[in-house]
This record gives sequence, structure tokens and C-alpha cells, in this order.
Amino acid sequence: MTDPQAEQPAAGGLTRRRLLFGGAVAGLGAAAAIGADAVLARPRADDAVAEPLNGSLTVPFYGAHQAGVTVAPQAHTTLIALDLHPDTDRDAIRRMLRVLTDDAARLTQGVAALADSEPELAVVPARLTVTVGFGAELVSRAAGTEARPAWLGALPAFGIDRLEDAWSGGDLLLQVAADDAFTVAHAVRMLLKDTRSFAAVRWTQTGFRRAYGSENNGTTMRNLFGQVDGTVNPAPSDDDFGDLVWCREGWLAGGTSVVVRRIHMDLDKWDRLDRGGREQSVGRYLSNGAPLTGTAEHDEPDFEATTAIGFPVIPEFSHVRRSRSENTAERIYRRGYNYDDAPTGGGISNSGLLFVSHQADVTRQFVPIQKRLDELDLLNEWTVPIGSAVFALPPGCAEGGYIGDTLL
Amino acid sequence: MTDPQAEQPAAGGLTRRRLLFGGAVAGLGAAAAIGADAVLARPRADDAVAEPLNGSLTVPFYGAHQAGVTVAPQAHTTLIALDLHPDTDRDAIRRMLRVLTDDAARLTQGVAALADSEPELAVVPARLTVTVGFGAELVSRAAGTEARPAWLGALPAFGIDRLEDAWSGGDLLLQVAADDAFTVAHAVRMLLKDTRSFAAVRWTQTGFRRAYGSENNGTTMRNLFGQVDGTVNPAPSDDDFGDLVWCREGWLAGGTSVVVRRIHMDLDKWDRLDRGGREQSVGRYLSNGAPLTGTAEHDEPDFEATTAIGFPVIPEFSHVRRSRSENTAERIYRRGYNYDDAPTGGGISNSGLLFVSHQADVTRQFVPIQKRLDELDLLNEWTVPIGSAVFALPPGCAEGGYIGDTLL
Repeated sequence: MTDPQAEQPAAGGLTRRRLLFGGAVAGLGAAAAIGADAVLARPRADDAVAEPLNGSLTVPFYGAHQAGVTVAPQAHTTLIALDLHPDTDRDAIRRMLRVLTDDAARLTQGVAALADSEPELAVVPARLTVTVGFGAELVSRAAGTEARPAWLGALPAFGIDRLEDAWSGGDLLLQVAADDAFTVAHAVRMLLKDTRSFAAVRWTQTGFRRAYGSENNGTTMRNLFGQVDGTVNPAPSDDDFGDLVWCREGWLAGGTSVVVRRIHMDLDKWDRLDRGGREQSVGRYLSNGAPLTGTAEHDEPDFEATTAIGFPVIPEFSHVRRSRSENTAERIYRRGYNYDDAPTGGGISNSGLLFVSHQADVTRQFVPIQKRLDELDLLNEWTVPIGSAVFALPPGCAEGGYIGDTLL
Repeated sequence: MTDPQAEQPAAGGLTRRRLLFGGAVAGLGAAAAIGADAVLARPRADDAVAEPLNGSLTVPFYGAHQAGVTVAPQAHTTLIALDLHPDTDRDAIRRMLRVLTDDAARLTQGVAALADSEPELAVVPARLTVTVGFGAELVSRAAGTEARPAWLGALPAFGIDRLEDAWSGGDLLLQVAADDAFTVAHAVRMLLKDTRSFAAVRWTQTGFRRAYGSENNGTTMRNLFGQVDGTVNPAPSDDDFGDLVWCREGWLAGGTSVVVRRIHMDLDKWDRLDRGGREQSVGRYLSNGAPLTGTAEHDEPDFEATTAIGFPVIPEFSHVRRSRSENTAERIYRRGYNYDDAPTGGGISNSGLLFVSHQADVTRQFVPIQKRLDELDLLNEWTVPIGSAVFALPPGCAEGGYIGDTLL
């Protein structure tokens, strides 16, 4: 089975130069570094040579799992939730998923969609992935209510939630991600043309991380509070990653779940907190994400350590302590994005986190963590969940199949 | 005087590896290409080596001209128009511009803003530029109405316009652009904290082009209609570029003007037009942007050529014909972006073009072109200007000076 993380040169782009760099230039580092200053001082317009074409990189579409879960997060994502039209029945769902699968398979390989109205926009895949999720209503219509996993539906109500319909729920999720915002825009449009007869857009959320090539591979994301965010995330290479993330039984075997939460971050209020206060609220240093009891990002926090006057070094109310469980099965795999939309009503920011997590079982893994954070987490002072949705991500499919074929 | 197009390694990022590639690897192309397939088939998580750190590239801030005009367009831009508070007088404007200049000079070099609340977010400049523009009201308050260039104010009314206040006007423009969306977000927040005491946000518009490294340098942008857009754009290396773009007299010497127009593109209506019709409307082939009388993008259109039955090969109503002037001084320098915002009200797209043009004199250069397009341009069938604003971009400043110091 293909590894969804493997990147390959694009099938498309016949007329484009195929100088693919990436990791391949590593051995040339010293030579390149010597030449860099001189070359970079020249105007770009004079450069007759090719840049490294990150845009040609592709992520395989077909496989045991859907792409877009374990691949190193791309720079841009657009999440779209749709509501099925009232007359979209089982047969219509199957037709919709077949055409979505077909176009996703093409676009992710740099090939125009089947009825692509702007085929020239499809030639830069830029690690595009399209991941499809099902809400409870879609599963019910496709295979009856008994096919719904127990965790598929609204999360339990949390005291901190101020959920808005505009960012919550949905019958179908399209998660489109690439290192090029233009690629995402084109793919989204093609896919929404596929779904138009079957479903209406309920919400759209757009997020970003650092650009491809901005930072070294494996750098943990920072959020807009400036925090290193996601240090303890399981890695796809971990021995227990499969048990944490992939469902094992029924039509969802090889699939997973996704929790999407829109977390507003009050940057103006955060501004009034000093650096020490910010570090206490998280339990980590802002400079490098190290726990307050350590010196490096991946040092294990020492929750027993106390200060000279007997207080815990990592406060009881800190995020790092409250999000941690004694139970190693109570873990989730996070793959979130920042959002920074145009402010409304005189504000100077409308920002936050598109929290995205995958786990084999939402009730068993996500809910206990969120319950602890709901009860006590100092970060709640500056953050408010304003959107929430849960979807089942079916397994990947083989060529000739379609996403959801194990359900229908 | 430094060339604002020249890129240099960042001053910041002390702990980051300095493998700067870009054009420097050109001579290594063959070797890199040979190794590429093998390396790209490996999961990224296993790559212990550095990616090319595009994020470290910087554009000089100080110079005869402001940065952000002649630099090869970055992948992301955010344009923000602000209205001065009623009590923001000449002295306050000077204070505001000093602090804006200081923070822009820092951030663009990968250095935290003076009162940066999240300094760790400032270490990836990614060719960040901050360009400051003045509306008529700001110029009047700073130096009296006589300091206003005749062209500074609302454009003449065009018949095709359906302008919305939400996207029009403003006293101060901040144009923030970088190859990394996160860099733009952080810079915008820092700059808006600087202006908060002096001005309120009137509108914010966000746009994108292809990511850095997605395409070869010098590839002409396509818009969301799939058209190659900007083929005849003057290049900063052209002999007459200075005459077209830079103002020559008074406080604006070394400065320029910017026209910002938000052009809604009706993608659904465009979908109903076949490929031939699309090419006729523009007068260029969609495949490579060549004029309908040529084979390559930069071939000169032959407006005299006729078909076998005597019709012009490039139709009278086509954009390429209508936008062209006999008068070579009637040209503008375009530096636009695509936008693709979340659709509202059941639509599946909310997309278009952030038209941005620079010219020494709006009345003499921009207005005649727009008048011709207003009278007749088949593209008007699918596009609607919904926002419009004009700003004077003062010249650049020297270290110790500030943007606008020639006015105040």
C-alpha cells in the first residue's frame, strides 16, 4: 500500500521544467550556501534559472488511508462543510462520492478535473490533498442509522463553548490542503461544482501554517499567541500511531474521525499578559516550547517539581498539565491551522485556531481531554470555542473504487 | 541607493540554519534532478536535512523608493485602509509614521517589532515588504490641501462600477506582502497596534498568487478565470519604467501612486462560456496567453489581421485591444492579486481580482485606459468593480528618516 506521506513528481505540467529540489540538494548545502549571498543580491527578474519547484510535488491519492491525515501539514487549508439537499438519497450520495473521488484523484496529481473549466490552473499540485468526511446525516442516508459510530454527532456541551451555527455541524466535509493558496482555491471550486447538485455549503474555514520552505522540516507550529503548539503530538512513525488514529472495524476500518473546532483567540486580551504570565498559563517557555522544568522543547515535563517556596513549577492550571492524561490511550493526533480573517466591527483582529484532531474514537480519546480543559485551563481566559463539528473520515480507496465505497 | 528588488539573508533567526538556495543551486540542477525522485519518495518526517529556507529571504526596507513596488510579487498580500481618527493632527501623523516606519524596517528584516508581543513570530521575513500609502485626507492634514496631487481622490465614476463603501476609500494604506501567510498575519497585527491610537481599520483585503517555488521565476500570473494576466506589464528593468512609475517632483519625488480596485469575477457565469468565447473575450489563447494572432505569450498582437471572411482575428471588443493605447505614456504597472473569500448566501464562490496598479500620474495613465474599458470590453460581462481607492505612495526613506518625511 502506498504511503500517503510519500511525495512524488507531478504527472501534469508537461511544459514545465522538472528541476525538483527539496531534500535532494542537502548534500550540496555548503556549495549552495557559499553562492547564496551573491545570487540573492541580484534582482529576481534577472534570474534565468529555475527556482525549486515545490509546486510539482504530489501526495498519492489512493491507499489504505485517505491522504491528508499523516502527510506533513501543508501551508494552506480550506475546510468546507456541506448540508445534503433533502433529495440527496443513497444513490445520489454514491454518484456524488464517485465524481468527488475522481476529481480529487486527478487534481491531487496535478491533472485537470474531468470537467475542469480552467485546466491550466490544475498544473501546480503543491502537495494537494483532498480528504472527505461524513456527518451523521450522510451516514444515515447512505446506510441507515445503525451504521453511525456512537461518537458521530455533536460533542457533549462544554461550559466554555460559545458555539455559532455558522461554524458548526455539517453532513459532508471537504478538507482541501496544499502549499499553494491558488491550488487550494482552484481545487475547492472544482469540488464544489461536483457537489452543487447534491449539497449546499454550510461553512467554509480557511487556515494557514508556515509556507513550504519557510522553516526546517519538523518544526512544531506556533499559534498566533506565539506558543509552540503541538509538541506532544503523536508522530505517524510512532509504534502506537495506528492504534490511536485508525479505526479497526466495519466500514470505517482504515478510516478515522476528525474533530474540527474553531477557537477564537483574543489577541488583545493576551497582549495585556506579560511574558511570565503567558508561560505560566501554558506551562512552557515561549522561546522554544520547553516545559518550565526543562530546557528543550521535547523534554518531558516534571509535574512533581516545586519552587523554593513549594509551589509547582508547572502550575496546576496550566494547559500542559491539564491536557495531559495518565491514560496513554487518551491521546489525539492534532493537525490544526491558524486563522486570521478580516476583523469586523472596529476590531483589529479576528484570529484563532482551526483545531483539527484525528482519533480512532472521539468519545474515548477527545472528550476526556476536552472535559479536563473545560473544567480548568488558564488558556480558557483568552480562548473561546465558537465552532464545532465531528466527521467520520472513511478509509482510502483503491483505483477504480471511491471514497465511501465501504459504506455504500 | 539600494535596489528594493535585491534579496538578502535575514538579520534575525540566529538559531536557524542558513542554507539559502534559490537561484544559487542552478548550476547543480542536473545532479539535484537525478536525486530528486529517490528523495521525494521518502516521507518528509524522515528528512533530517534542511529544506531551502525561502523564509529567510529579505527585501531591503530603506531606499529611494518604498519596497513592495518593484520586488517580484510575493505569494500573499494584505491591503488595509484606515481612517484617521478626528483628532489625529499633523504631529500625530508624524508620530504614527515614525513608529510605523521603525516597525516596518524591523519586521521586514526578520527582527521583532519594537514592542513585539510575540517576537518569536517575527523570525521568518519571507521577503516581507510593508508599503505605506496616503489618502487625500492624510495629505491635507499633514501639509494642507495644496500638497495633494490633482489625481489623489476618488476616480471618475465609471459606468461599470458598483462600488461598495466597504471596499472603497481610506486615509492611510498599509500594503503588507510576503511569501508566508503567517508572516503577513504577524506583521499586520504589529502594524495595526501601532496605528490603533491614530486610525481605525476601514477595510482589509487579502490576496494570493502562486506560492514561492511553485512556478519558475517570471511566470506571468493567471487569474481565477484561468487567463494569463499581465503579459504586457512594464518590467522594472525597462528603460522607461522610471518615467511610467515614479513621480518626479515635490514631496512625492521617488514615490508613486497606487490604484486599488476590487474586481468581482463571476465564475459561475464564466463557466457558461466555452473556450473559444473565453479566448475571444480576451484576445489571447488560454493555453499560454499568446495573442490570437501569435503563438507565444510575448508575441506582439497583430490588430490588423483579419479572418478569411474579413473579421478581425482579435475582436474589437476584446480586452487586449481595448486596454491598449496608441500613446505609450498611457501605461500602468500592475501588481495585482487574486482573492477567494468564503462565499455567502448560498453561492459557491466569492472571488475576483485585487487590481493594484502603480503609475506616476493616475489621471494621465490609469484613467484613459479605464475609460476605454468602461466604454467597451467584453470582459465587463463577467467582472464588476466593487471597490476603488487611490493612494499616494511617498518615496522611500533613509535610515533615521521615516516614510512621509518629505511631506511633513
